[in-house]
Amino acid sequence: MQEAINLALKGSADVRPNPKVGCILVKNKEIIGKGYHKKYGGYHAEVNAFNYCIKKYGKDKAVELLSDATAYITLEPCSIFSKTPPCTSSLIKYGVKNVFCASLDPNKKINGKGVKILRENGINVEVGLLKEQALSINQDFFFRHKKGRPFIRMKIAQSLDAKIALSSGDSKWITSKKSRDDVQEIRKSSDGILVGSGTILKDNPRLNVRKNITSINGKQPKKIILGSSFLTKENDLKIYDGKSEVIICSQEFSSYSKKDNLIKLPIKKNSTLKDTLKELSKHELNSILVEGGSKVFTSFLKEGLVDELILYISPKFLGKDSIDSLFIDSPDYLKDARKFKIYDSMLVGDDIKIIMRKKK
Amino acid sequence: MQEAINLALKGSADVRPNPKVGCILVKNKEIIGKGYHKKYGGYHAEVNAFNYCIKKYGKDKAVELLSDATAYITLEPCSIFSKTPPCTSSLIKYGVKNVFCASLDPNKKINGKGVKILRENGINVEVGLLKEQALSINQDFFFRHKKGRPFIRMKIAQSLDAKIALSSGDSKWITSKKSRDDVQEIRKSSDGILVGSGTILKDNPRLNVRKNITSINGKQPKKIILGSSFLTKENDLKIYDGKSEVIICSQEFSSYSKKDNLIKLPIKKNSTLKDTLKELSKHELNSILVEGGSKVFTSFLKEGLVDELILYISPKFLGKDSIDSLFIDSPDYLKDARKFKIYDSMLVGDDIKIIMRKKK
Repeated sequence: MQEAINLALKGSADVRPNPKVGCILVKNKEIIGKGYHKKYGGYHAEVNAFNYCIKKYGKDKAVELLSDATAYITLEPCSIFSKTPPCTSSLIKYGVKNVFCASLDPNKKINGKGVKILRENGINVEVGLLKEQALSINQDFFFRHKKGRPFIRMKIAQSLDAKIALSSGDSKWITSKKSRDDVQEIRKSSDGILVGSGTILKDNPRLNVRKNITSINGKQPKKIILGSSFLTKENDLKIYDGKSEVIICSQEFSSYSKKDNLIKLPIKKNSTLKDTLKELSKHELNSILVEGGSKVFTSFLKEGLVDELILYISPKFLGKDSIDSLFIDSPDYLKDARKFKIYDSMLVGDDIKIIMRKKK
Repeated sequence: MQEAINLALKGSADVRPNPKVGCILVKNKEIIGKGYHKKYGGYHAEVNAFNYCIKKYGKDKAVELLSDATAYITLEPCSIFSKTPPCTSSLIKYGVKNVFCASLDPNKKINGKGVKILRENGINVEVGLLKEQALSINQDFFFRHKKGRPFIRMKIAQSLDAKIALSSGDSKWITSKKSRDDVQEIRKSSDGILVGSGTILKDNPRLNVRKNITSINGKQPKKIILGSSFLTKENDLKIYDGKSEVIICSQEFSSYSKKDNLIKLPIKKNSTLKDTLKELSKHELNSILVEGGSKVFTSFLKEGLVDELILYISPKFLGKDSIDSLFIDSPDYLKDARKFKIYDSMLVGDDIKIIMRKKK
């Protein structure tokens, strides 16, 4: 199973929003097949493992070996037709005898059904081997299915006095090039990048993963804009590059619509940010990277929706007239201040990066 | 000389405001004496090295060995009577033949005079061996003599949103116990601790080094208060513990006075903070730790007088109504923001500590 987990990790960010999965096939204590899910829309780990076996031994020998073989899979095999046929069918077809899954698939469409089908077909199934480790490699994926909303990572690039821009709006750049490149890696492993409409109008950002900075073979993250319906395709905005979906969430839309790469998501009046995230969750978003501005940062923090906070602090002072990174209400007592727990920190270029998680 | 530097470091913070000094005596390629300056007011390194030799070999043998011996000293021997007789006299008396000093003493009363006296008495003197290393162990000491003002370390304990207290003034405690204990170590290696009179009136701090947290055998740092003449000895303030000097700097004093442990230092109107630091420099202050509050932080930063900035950041938010750590004017352009260079960073308890130096 450890081998299968190591294999799964090769899938890296390119499988998003699918989970990373690895599969090892064993017969007579020898590995006869191995595979992992390489890229969103591509073959699942099990199919790649079968194909590996066939390629290595030839069709006839492979069929013979696979009969009564044992499979180690980091996730419950799928039981449904999606982009590929169900993996349970292949396991049954080749006559695999034993299946070890590290964990069940949290997706409600599968959750236990894959295991059930295998058992009904006489396969011995055991669930839970190296479970914790298997969960940790697909943290965001499990989070969404458990909580019904995406995992929220919030990234703030600020000065020592917690400012994110001069009063003129100038924020290019507070942090060093290395920090900005580092953000590209976080974007790459996110299913969506979220900003407020103010940030779009002020900065006209591309909100994508730059191929000259980091390789990306899978899908570009979706772009999610909170706020205004202004931002139609007619505008000359860089977010509309035709390469990824743009989801605009606004109270000004009366109904849901999807056209080309633009989704208009209506937000009910008086609904909370959490409600919006639940809606967004349906769009295959395991994780969202929240990138600004102050108002958006404030809303997420206020509603306690920041699961991970990543701060890049540049060692400079922008002064009292500059724009605060956020502005939540103050507590009456210090003990009631909103807290995080520092998980890791490191120097990145001229800056310091601090990774924090919600304090339990 | 490397041995002598290692020895000097044993002197640690207890020698403050004196420099750390080590001395090795060699004859026929063997070490016959070694010593270091242990504690403020105690024997100098050279005298301790001679005494070591006498104790080890007995008086007669020692006198024989020391004649024509070679001395390695991390700093130019003193040529003046201070708390102890001049070390140059001992070197001459025992007939030492060669003296290597890592650097000259920057103190204008000595600077070169020690070397001159030795040479006039027929001793070969060479200056500069492992100079850089010798300078680095007494950084603050050399800084004061070179710049004519103490080295300024500024310590701020703040939240993620750069606040140092709730609007009620409550700041106990923003950072964790481990961070506060860590500050005791910085206090210990500082000659003075400086705060504004507002901080005294609000928090009534002791501003000392706590013996239950860190050992201190040397002198307690002096307490320096900027601002108000209110703070007379009559008040029930914890700074007046009889164990260290309190220096109050105020425009309200018409003349200098010193009584018991209280010094009243008059500040001229329209004088700069730098002028005040030059005055303070005369009080044997190689380094000052600036501990608050906002107004004091702002003044030091504004005048570019922060040589080292130590930030303890607690992973919490105090919100918009809380007190900003400082409030300097904003620059017109990002490139003109006041910058530092991160020198080191580490986790301390629940917090992160960032050590920054002035950007050259």
